[in-house]
Amino acid sequence: MEKYSENEAMPKLANLHNWMYSNNGIEKEFGFKNFTQALGFIVQVGILAEKVNHHPELFNVYKRVVIRLSTHDAGGVTDKDFDLATAIEEL
Amino acid sequence: MEKYSENEAMPKLANLHNWMYSNNGIEKEFGFKNFTQALGFIVQVGILAEKVNHHPELFNVYKRVVIRLSTHDAGGVTDKDFDLATAIEEL
Repeated sequence: MEKYSENEAMPKLANLHNWMYSNNGIEKEFGFKNFTQALGFIVQVGILAEKVNHHPELFNVYKRVVIRLSTHDAGGVTDKDFDLATAIEEL
Repeated sequence: MEKYSENEAMPKLANLHNWMYSNNGIEKEFGFKNFTQALGFIVQVGILAEKVNHHPELFNVYKRVVIRLSTHDAGGVTDKDFDLATAIEEL
């Protein structure tokens, strides 16, 4: 898997909504109406991730969920991350 | 809700398994066999938390889950946190 530099990642990020490049990964913060909705989103992302065997770093507190994607084997952002980000956007 | 200092929290922590006091909260790292089990645990903790309306900070990457409990209104650790930690231990 080819790793994208921050500059190379920019045009790919432009196709997504509010994802940011940060420290060799891409991340986005999601806000929900309540905790139950946040938990539902976490489960949906988890099932997507397990299907493609590519797992995010996930942080949750109450109505807020932060998803961070990076390809450990490549030491940075690859198409695996953009593909999963796109699938998450489509939820 | 009365807030426990780190020293006051110690005897309460001794009743739990591998929870640590850290920065006005208590936290524990849980390891699982695979992501599916980690996700199942996250959902169980989430349902417990929603029932008592006290929500953890949760961090997950692959088979690893870190739960951090703190009572925001009290600015530190209270019985709400120890009660939820105890319930999590019983899962």
